[in-house]
Amino acid sequence: MEKKRIALLGHRFMGRAHSNAWRQVSKFFDTPYEPVLQVVCGRDQKDLQQFADQWGWAEVETDWTKVMARDDIDIIDIALPTHLHAETAIAAAEAGKHIFCEKPFCNSIAQAEAMLDVAEKAGVVHYLNHNYRRCPAVFQAKKMIDAGELGEILHWRGAYQQSWLLNPNHPIDWKLRKKTAAAGPLWDLGSHAVDLAHFLVGDFSSVTCQTTQFQKRRPLAENPSKKGDVEVECSALMLAEFTNGAQGTIETTRYASGRRNRHTFEIYGTGGALTWDMEDMNRLKFYSEKDPRETAGFRDIMVTEPVHEYVKNWWPPGHIIGYEHTFVHAAADFLRAVESGQRIAPNFADGVRITKVLEAALNSSESNARVFL
Amino acid sequence: MEKKRIALLGHRFMGRAHSNAWRQVSKFFDTPYEPVLQVVCGRDQKDLQQFADQWGWAEVETDWTKVMARDDIDIIDIALPTHLHAETAIAAAEAGKHIFCEKPFCNSIAQAEAMLDVAEKAGVVHYLNHNYRRCPAVFQAKKMIDAGELGEILHWRGAYQQSWLLNPNHPIDWKLRKKTAAAGPLWDLGSHAVDLAHFLVGDFSSVTCQTTQFQKRRPLAENPSKKGDVEVECSALMLAEFTNGAQGTIETTRYASGRRNRHTFEIYGTGGALTWDMEDMNRLKFYSEKDPRETAGFRDIMVTEPVHEYVKNWWPPGHIIGYEHTFVHAAADFLRAVESGQRIAPNFADGVRITKVLEAALNSSESNARVFL
Amino acid sequence: MEKKRIALLGHRFMGRAHSNAWRQVSKFFDTPYEPVLQVVCGRDQKDLQQFADQWGWAEVETDWTKVMARDDIDIIDIALPTHLHAETAIAAAEAGKHIFCEKPFCNSIAQAEAMLDVAEKAGVVHYLNHNYRRCPAVFQAKKMIDAGELGEILHWRGAYQQSWLLNPNHPIDWKLRKKTAAAGPLWDLGSHAVDLAHFLVGDFSSVTCQTTQFQKRRPLAENPSKKGDVEVECSALMLAEFTNGAQGTIETTRYASGRRNRHTFEIYGTGGALTWDMEDMNRLKFYSEKDPRETAGFRDIMVTEPVHEYVKNWWPPGHIIGYEHTFVHAAADFLRAVESGQRIAPNFADGVRITKVLEAALNSSESNARVFL
Amino acid sequence: MEKKRIALLGHRFMGRAHSNAWRQVSKFFDTPYEPVLQVVCGRDQKDLQQFADQWGWAEVETDWTKVMARDDIDIIDIALPTHLHAETAIAAAEAGKHIFCEKPFCNSIAQAEAMLDVAEKAGVVHYLNHNYRRCPAVFQAKKMIDAGELGEILHWRGAYQQSWLLNPNHPIDWKLRKKTAAAGPLWDLGSHAVDLAHFLVGDFSSVTCQTTQFQKRRPLAENPSKKGDVEVECSALMLAEFTNGAQGTIETTRYASGRRNRHTFEIYGTGGALTWDMEDMNRLKFYSEKDPRETAGFRDIMVTEPVHEYVKNWWPPGHIIGYEHTFVHAAADFLRAVESGQRIAPNFADGVRITKVLEAALNSSESNARVFL
Repeated sequence: MEKKRIALLGHRFMGRAHSNAWRQVSKFFDTPYEPVLQVVCGRDQKDLQQFADQWGWAEVETDWTKVMARDDIDIIDIALPTHLHAETAIAAAEAGKHIFCEKPFCNSIAQAEAMLDVAEKAGVVHYLNHNYRRCPAVFQAKKMIDAGELGEILHWRGAYQQSWLLNPNHPIDWKLRKKTAAAGPLWDLGSHAVDLAHFLVGDFSSVTCQTTQFQKRRPLAENPSKKGDVEVECSALMLAEFTNGAQGTIETTRYASGRRNRHTFEIYGTGGALTWDMEDMNRLKFYSEKDPRETAGFRDIMVTEPVHEYVKNWWPPGHIIGYEHTFVHAAADFLRAVESGQRIAPNFADGVRITKVLEAALNSSESNARVFL
Repeated sequence: MEKKRIALLGHRFMGRAHSNAWRQVSKFFDTPYEPVLQVVCGRDQKDLQQFADQWGWAEVETDWTKVMARDDIDIIDIALPTHLHAETAIAAAEAGKHIFCEKPFCNSIAQAEAMLDVAEKAGVVHYLNHNYRRCPAVFQAKKMIDAGELGEILHWRGAYQQSWLLNPNHPIDWKLRKKTAAAGPLWDLGSHAVDLAHFLVGDFSSVTCQTTQFQKRRPLAENPSKKGDVEVECSALMLAEFTNGAQGTIETTRYASGRRNRHTFEIYGTGGALTWDMEDMNRLKFYSEKDPRETAGFRDIMVTEPVHEYVKNWWPPGHIIGYEHTFVHAAADFLRAVESGQRIAPNFADGVRITKVLEAALNSSESNARVFL
Repeated sequence: MEKKRIALLGHRFMGRAHSNAWRQVSKFFDTPYEPVLQVVCGRDQKDLQQFADQWGWAEVETDWTKVMARDDIDIIDIALPTHLHAETAIAAAEAGKHIFCEKPFCNSIAQAEAMLDVAEKAGVVHYLNHNYRRCPAVFQAKKMIDAGELGEILHWRGAYQQSWLLNPNHPIDWKLRKKTAAAGPLWDLGSHAVDLAHFLVGDFSSVTCQTTQFQKRRPLAENPSKKGDVEVECSALMLAEFTNGAQGTIETTRYASGRRNRHTFEIYGTGGALTWDMEDMNRLKFYSEKDPRETAGFRDIMVTEPVHEYVKNWWPPGHIIGYEHTFVHAAADFLRAVESGQRIAPNFADGVRITKVLEAALNSSESNARVFL
Repeated sequence: MEKKRIALLGHRFMGRAHSNAWRQVSKFFDTPYEPVLQVVCGRDQKDLQQFADQWGWAEVETDWTKVMARDDIDIIDIALPTHLHAETAIAAAEAGKHIFCEKPFCNSIAQAEAMLDVAEKAGVVHYLNHNYRRCPAVFQAKKMIDAGELGEILHWRGAYQQSWLLNPNHPIDWKLRKKTAAAGPLWDLGSHAVDLAHFLVGDFSSVTCQTTQFQKRRPLAENPSKKGDVEVECSALMLAEFTNGAQGTIETTRYASGRRNRHTFEIYGTGGALTWDMEDMNRLKFYSEKDPRETAGFRDIMVTEPVHEYVKNWWPPGHIIGYEHTFVHAAADFLRAVESGQRIAPNFADGVRITKVLEAALNSSESNARVFL
């Protein structure tokens, strides 16, 4: 099998998830290429080497610009903090590398459009890793919507709730600084929620957003004895209208007690409804207006059948998969896109689309008014 | 509307539930008669009068044999401890009264057969109040099974679990004495579970039962400073085979922490499955093998639609009903049976049938062997 | 027991629910008065008499002004369409009658303030029947919040979803006309949702609302062969901020497939979270930050214990109650307020408070801007 | 890191799961050795080579006796049909290899005792892969029980339900033949259920079992145009008593419509209750009698916190794991046992213990009597 060599930028949480995906993908999926874990880039030499040893990356590199210049690297995998996406993705595209880019896409519409523009001109495969699309239950939802099972969609009710900032001593790290993260949960969690809304409902025609700060001062990550300002919002609540007339809400917060990683949607159409929750990601709930009234009810579909996308590559029915499997699915589809030269979704165009919604939401929260897209 | 006068025997928990049923039935259901709360019988004159005042019983009576002799009484409602059912029911039948009898039916097969025999000869309407049959969700289950939605039934998994005896100081009252209660949860809870199995699956061909006593000594109800022997089992677990080949289990206990009144069944057939839990009595879960594999899952049916039996007499869809409504349904059907002269189920014949299963279970628990019916 | 005579205005859905409450209250609760179902008022003489016979109202009356003039009437129970509340409530107060008023309160802030003003001056007991406050699980939520179990409240996520307008042939009745209903689900369902938010969180400081119309033309109720304009919104989605800093959403719709009467809230505080759903009204879910992380999880509290408000008057633990019981609780508390002369909540002051929020929401939906209260 | 070379016997479903475990274990866990996928054994040369290529096994071998003779092999991993376990495990032990053996243990008590005897004499590490013990939620249950959270255990309610034999055309393969599988679901599923009961409750003192055959003839796997006899039971229901007095049931079937791989238990003790379902394997439900009655309820514990065993090696809270992760946990613990020389559980002694219960159950089903152990 032909090999494709990967350079991974970043070696924290997402670095692990991506490394695992590249390692696993050819074991469970029939891929056109064998991905090679060639080089991992980072700034902390010691941590970097340990990470490379652990995950089987052949080389380490502290200067990411060097890997762009290498002929033997086919794929740049960006798993860095958000503010570093634009620079690295643009360099990768200019070097003719295919790009597997972690979300959130970038910090601004300007960056987003530049990234898309360069990638398109370079003709590389560009992928934006909103991995939840590749959860089999979410894919199944999409399939059902496309088949008309929900009729015309009327309502979207999305939320992405976490609780880690309830700890008042959680320090200010890159996720709580405007420069590095662009915004708070709106960006980090809201980008996922908006992506699913794009995937399952369509384009937004307007957004109205309300943000707040529950805790303004926190210890600094680099010096916990000192406090600094939290520069991003603590929660962001949105109203949305879609171009097809559907009405929606999206709620994002890091202050929802009891919710660890609750990414959920409810979709209501003229023909039925679907609901999903990432914390029970193998399940999809489905109500059909076609069922006789007497026996109608939300069906608790265990999306673990061979007929469900991605599932037959794993285990028999009823044997659930977990969080990291969505990354493996993304890696499989990405390699196929590299082979076929066809677009994979979501991609940088989706990144632009999402960033426009998120920026409009930020503008709305400042103007206290609805913003039309 | 013609009136039917009722004499109620007993004025504790079941006395309240029955009184409420007679008061409510003509308000919500179209009944052929107006039930009149004529006389309530009991031994404690003071409590009795207070109860009569509270619930609107016109008279009180401390000698129940007198009400049997009265021409103006049409219906005897037996809400007494189990060991008093046979004597009172037989007297009522001999006096030509229609009988609304609380469960458990009686203490032995001999009593049961005598009760049925006399009632049949007298030609009165006899009803045994296994009220859960008239929970709309259970009725819906029956309807679906009769319509073939489950195909051939293969498995019954029933349980009736409570937890009140976890309190080591709960005293020995009539429910913990063999003479008054016949047995423990096997009789009290198991009679309900067996009745639902009869209703939804069919006749038993064998039972195998294992009982135990977790706590053998408890304070006496009449003198809590003294302790006495618990005379009945604390839990009873049963294996069952049905004449149609279905395989089943029934578990009853008063020692299941966290379960208040969990009466539940799971039925699996060649065509699908149904599950129900009294603690969520307005819901029925249904899996259909006819659903496409891709979108199959247990449906959470909210049994609150006008098409569901009994429901249209109450509130609009989604507005749930509660425990006591099942008694109102029983009262409505009972009055219709009095008018039509047709049998109502369950009746004393079902009482005989249930008692035979329960006695076989007791025998099995003593012999450590399967008992064929 | 002293009697209090009631005149009921209205004899449809709410007329039934109120009649049942007055009939049941003294059976299950220790009330200071015996409520007497004296007279029911309505315009359709034939239906009215049938209703009176069914429910035991002693008299019928087609001119409601006459009952205001009667000395023997103590309580006016208003179960009419919304636009008739102000006139009747004001007349009742001026006549010195205690008032039990169904929701929504009225059509405008002007009406609301006049109603409150007159009732206060008259010194009568005035009650606004947002009955869900008296669901034992909701009451328990309030008790826990007041005891500090949630710490400082950060998020409110409310929704009231129904689906009856998915039927395109559902006709235009009073609920779909602006004059009679003031608005659509915002008023009918949103008033309940706002009341619970008031009860459990506190006052609103701002609202932002987005409404839409999914179906603009429908058959006329009075002549189904003709179509007319739906004059009220089909769905209303709101963002809210509370004076205590909490951030909230409220969603109301009659177009949510699969939802019959789903009235739900999620409350997140610094110390824990609570969620509730009217379709499973006997349950309250509770997450506590005090639980050890290892064994923390949302508790599924079955609110059917004697220690739970109202519950000990009904049945033993695990025996659930239904929708209409909340009305019985309201009747019990109302009669106690009549005796004590103390305020009962919610009352007309709450009606004013709710109406202000709802009108602000309507204004917001027209201006596309956040409205501060 | 020192290497340990593995020979895998078998390359079907379990061969995949084991291969993945050996590949993943050192990436996510801190292991004392690096497991080397040295050689995979099987009879079908072509399939075998393809499997080896796919999963990275260095060599293939069609004669398993040869790998026993090799000095460079440290670990024998048995993933063969049940009837081949005894011969291969005994050979492995005699060759001084550590043994990682898939369940069910073997076909009879005689085999089981021989396997244990030889393994003990050889002083090798022997492990029996009842992997569900290493589901973090099950491990957490054990920890809570050991800490006394449930008090004295009174009830065990176990079930392992699948539905694949509802397909009448599913052919007779090794799992439906007595010689190869020993028994039906009793052996295949029941061994897991008994293992969890051993783990969480303790030793059995008696079993009573009822088996049945729903479909006696099926197509032959090797020639689907011909039918043969199903030689094993279709369902097995058991009553159990434990030496500590706890009362239990265990139900196993391959005919439960809607259940894909529902392996569930409910445990009730004097101090609380725990329930678990493999289909939602990341959750544990816990009721504590210590909680105030007012706020007590089953807690839905998401077992995805760093404090939960095995979890911190995977992903952040709320990011669930799947079925195959339990095998990785087993591999990690196995390698540690190889290093420390300490016993790992479950092991061949547990295999003997389980086999005794299962054989007693088979005997009970034939004699229709309770069998004491």
